[in-house]
Amino acid sequence: MPKPNVQLLLTGNELMTGDIVDSNSAMIAQQLKELGLEISRKVTVADDITTLINEINHLAEQADILIINGGLGPTIDDLTAEALAKATKVNLTEHKDALIHLKSWCKKRDVKLNTPNLKQTLLPQNCTIIPNKDGSAVGFKVNHLACDIYCTPGVPRELKTMLAEQITHDIAKYHPTKLITDTTRLQVFGLGESTLQKMIDEQLPTWPKSIELGFRAGMPLLEVKLTTSCEEGHRIKPIWCAKLEKIIGDHIIATIKDTPLTLAKHLLLKLQEDKLKITTAESCTGGMIASLLTKEAGASSSFEAGFVTYSNEMKTELLAVTQQSLSQHGAVSREVVIEMAKGALKRSSADFAIAVSGIAGPDGGTKEKPVGTVWLAWGHKSNLKTVGLLIPLSRDYFQKYVANIGLDLVRRELINSTQTAHYITERKFS
Amino acid sequence: MPKPNVQLLLTGNELMTGDIVDSNSAMIAQQLKELGLEISRKVTVADDITTLINEINHLAEQADILIINGGLGPTIDDLTAEALAKATKVNLTEHKDALIHLKSWCKKRDVKLNTPNLKQTLLPQNCTIIPNKDGSAVGFKVNHLACDIYCTPGVPRELKTMLAEQITHDIAKYHPTKLITDTTRLQVFGLGESTLQKMIDEQLPTWPKSIELGFRAGMPLLEVKLTTSCEEGHRIKPIWCAKLEKIIGDHIIATIKDTPLTLAKHLLLKLQEDKLKITTAESCTGGMIASLLTKEAGASSSFEAGFVTYSNEMKTELLAVTQQSLSQHGAVSREVVIEMAKGALKRSSADFAIAVSGIAGPDGGTKEKPVGTVWLAWGHKSNLKTVGLLIPLSRDYFQKYVANIGLDLVRRELINSTQTAHYITERKFS
Repeated sequence: MPKPNVQLLLTGNELMTGDIVDSNSAMIAQQLKELGLEISRKVTVADDITTLINEINHLAEQADILIINGGLGPTIDDLTAEALAKATKVNLTEHKDALIHLKSWCKKRDVKLNTPNLKQTLLPQNCTIIPNKDGSAVGFKVNHLACDIYCTPGVPRELKTMLAEQITHDIAKYHPTKLITDTTRLQVFGLGESTLQKMIDEQLPTWPKSIELGFRAGMPLLEVKLTTSCEEGHRIKPIWCAKLEKIIGDHIIATIKDTPLTLAKHLLLKLQEDKLKITTAESCTGGMIASLLTKEAGASSSFEAGFVTYSNEMKTELLAVTQQSLSQHGAVSREVVIEMAKGALKRSSADFAIAVSGIAGPDGGTKEKPVGTVWLAWGHKSNLKTVGLLIPLSRDYFQKYVANIGLDLVRRELINSTQTAHYITERKFS
Repeated sequence: MPKPNVQLLLTGNELMTGDIVDSNSAMIAQQLKELGLEISRKVTVADDITTLINEINHLAEQADILIINGGLGPTIDDLTAEALAKATKVNLTEHKDALIHLKSWCKKRDVKLNTPNLKQTLLPQNCTIIPNKDGSAVGFKVNHLACDIYCTPGVPRELKTMLAEQITHDIAKYHPTKLITDTTRLQVFGLGESTLQKMIDEQLPTWPKSIELGFRAGMPLLEVKLTTSCEEGHRIKPIWCAKLEKIIGDHIIATIKDTPLTLAKHLLLKLQEDKLKITTAESCTGGMIASLLTKEAGASSSFEAGFVTYSNEMKTELLAVTQQSLSQHGAVSREVVIEMAKGALKRSSADFAIAVSGIAGPDGGTKEKPVGTVWLAWGHKSNLKTVGLLIPLSRDYFQKYVANIGLDLVRRELINSTQTAHYITERKFS
C-alpha cells in the first residue's frame, strides 16, 4: 500500500496578516511523523468563503488525507463548517452529539450556552464528529472526492489533544502503513543544539544512518529524538541510545517514550521520593521558580512556602539578609544569596532551598555587574553551594533560564551528580 | 485599479517536517501591508522539482504577484531557479551581474569562490536580478502567465532587506494601489469570543461591512481587531470603534494601534502613575501573580515583595492568618484571603494587595468546595474587597485565569471602575 498523500489547509486572517506565526502545522507534522507520514503541501488562506470552497476542492482532488485547521469557533469569521458543506454540496444541520458536547462543556464550566456558541453545532450533514476534550468546538470528518478531510480547532492545546487521542488513531486505522516508527526522546537541560551536535560529531562520528537524530529546542528543555523505521534501526537503537546517553550525562533529565515531563515535575518527583521539602527565595526571577513548581499537580507535598524579595528592604525584612552584606557586597552577591537561602530555610522549615539574585535588565547593570549577572545558592542548611553566572540575554529569556537552572541545580544535588553542568562551565564568572 | 492578487510560495523540507516554524511569511505580510496589500494565499511545499513546477504554474495562473521564498542557496536541495526555468520553458544561463555580485561578496569576506557557490549564478534567461545586500544569493524576477514572480532568499535578514529596499518599491511601481489599510486593536480581558460576538449581534446589529471584525484569543487577553481598507470604512471607523468600546466597557485593557502590552504591564503603568506599591499573597496561583508582574521591566518601582504561602502553616507563619479562621472556614475562604491580604500589606508596607486561595485541582476538591473554587481579596488596608468564584477548569488554565483575574481586579480598582466584570457575573458563587 503506497503512502497516503497528506495535505494541510490552514485558515485564518491572522495567519495571512503576519499577526501570528503558525506553530500548529509543525505540531501536526510531528504527530504525523510518528505514523511514518509526511505532509506534501500546506496551504494557508484567509477567512473568505469562496476561497475556502475552491481550496478544499482543489486539495481534496489531489490528497488522500486533508487536515483543515482553524475556523471552528463561534464568531462570524469561522467558516470551515459552511465551506465544507458547500464544497460537498450538503446542508448544514444541527448535530446532536455536538450539541450534547456543547451543553456538557458549558455545564462543566458553569456558563450559559449562548446563540453564537450554537453555531458550533451546525455541521455538514453526514460528517463524523471528532470529540474535543479541551474546547467547545468539536472537530469533524467528511469524505470528499475520495479524500478523508479532518476539520480541527485552531487553539493549539485543543488541536494537540485531538490529534493525539483521535485523529492519528483514525488515520492509522484507515490509512495503515507498514512502517513501524520507534521514537525515543532524551529530555536535556543545559546544552544547546549546536554544542550537542558538535559533541556527537566528535565523539560518535559513525552515527548510523538508520537512526534519525532530531533536535527540538523547547525552552528550557532540548529534546533529542532518536527515530527509526527500519529493522536494522530497531535492532541497534538501544546500543546507540546508550552511547548518546553516556556522552550527555547528567544533562539528561529523563529518557522517555511518551509524554514529556517538565524539569519542575522531575524535581518534585525526586523530592517526594526522598520525602524532602523545598523553599524558594527569589529576587530577579520574581516568583517564577515557585510558579514553575506549583504549576505541577501535587506540588504541596514538597513545597510549602516561597519568598519573592524584590527590594533590598524586603530581603532584610522577610529573610533577615544583613544590612552589612547588602552594603558591602550588593544585592547581587554570594553573601546575599546565602543569607536569602538561610532565611528562607529558617522561616519555612524546608529541607532544601534555592535562592536567586541577579540583574535581569534591561536596566540596572553596572560595569562590575553587567545585566545578566546572577548569583544562586542552593542546598540544605549545613551545605549551601553557590555559583555566579553571567547570562547576558533578554530579560524574558534570562528569567526563564535562571529559574530552570535553579531547579536543575537542586535536581543535580539530589541525584548526587559529580558532573559539572555545561552552563556552569560556560557561564561561570566566580 | 483593482488590488492585485498576491500569493506566496514557501519552499523547504524543514518547513514541512515541523523542524522550524515559518516566520518569513509574517514579515512579508507586514511589509506588503504598508502598501495596502494582503496575501490571499500561502502555499508551502517540500524541495521537490516536479511539485515546485506544478505549484508555480498553478499559482501564477491566479495571482498578479507571486513571491517565492527559499531555495536560492548553493546546495542540491535548492531548486527555485531550476523550477522557474522549467515552468517558464527557458534555459538556465550564467548571469553576469550575479557572478559579479558573488565575486565581490567572496572578496569582501576573504573566502574562495567554490563550485557550489557558482550554482547561484545560474538563473532563468531573461530574468531581472534583484540585489542582495546581505547574502551570496541574488534574488530575481520573472513574468510568467501575466504574473510578476519575485524569488527571494530564505535567510530572514536577507529577505527583510531585499523586501524593504527592492521588492516593495518594485511592486509599488508596477502595481500602484490607493488603498491604505487601517487597523485598531482592542485588548480585552474577561470576555470570551462567543460572549463578545453575542453582545455585538444584539447591541450593534447593523455593524458595517466596510469594517472587518477579527478576534484573536490569546490567553489571557482577547484581541478584537477592526480593520478597514476603503474610504467609507476610514470615515466611519472611529464612530463604530467608540460604539464597540462602549459596550465592552472596562473589559477593555487598552485600545492600541501597534504593540500590545500585557495585563501586568498595564497594571504596573497605572501603579507607577499613581505612585503605589503592590504586594501579593498567593496560595493556589503559587507565585504566578508575582512572576507576571516581575516579568515586566521596571517592576521594581511598584513591587517589592510577594508571598507564596502554599500550606496552612505558612499562611499563619508568614502572613499571620489565624488558626481560628483556618479551622472554622478553611484555607479557601473569604476570612483567610482577607487575613492573607492584611498580612502581606503589613509585612511589605505596600499600598495595595492581592491575595488568592483556591483549589486548582486535580485533587483537593470537596462537595462544598469543588475543584475550581477560589477566593480573592484585593485593595488597600482600609478597603479590602473580596469575591468567591467557581472556575472549574484544568489546573493550568485555572492558575493562569485566576492570576490574571487578580491583576484585573486591582486594575479595575485603580481606574475606579463601576462596571461589574463579566467573570464575576458569570462565576461568582458568593
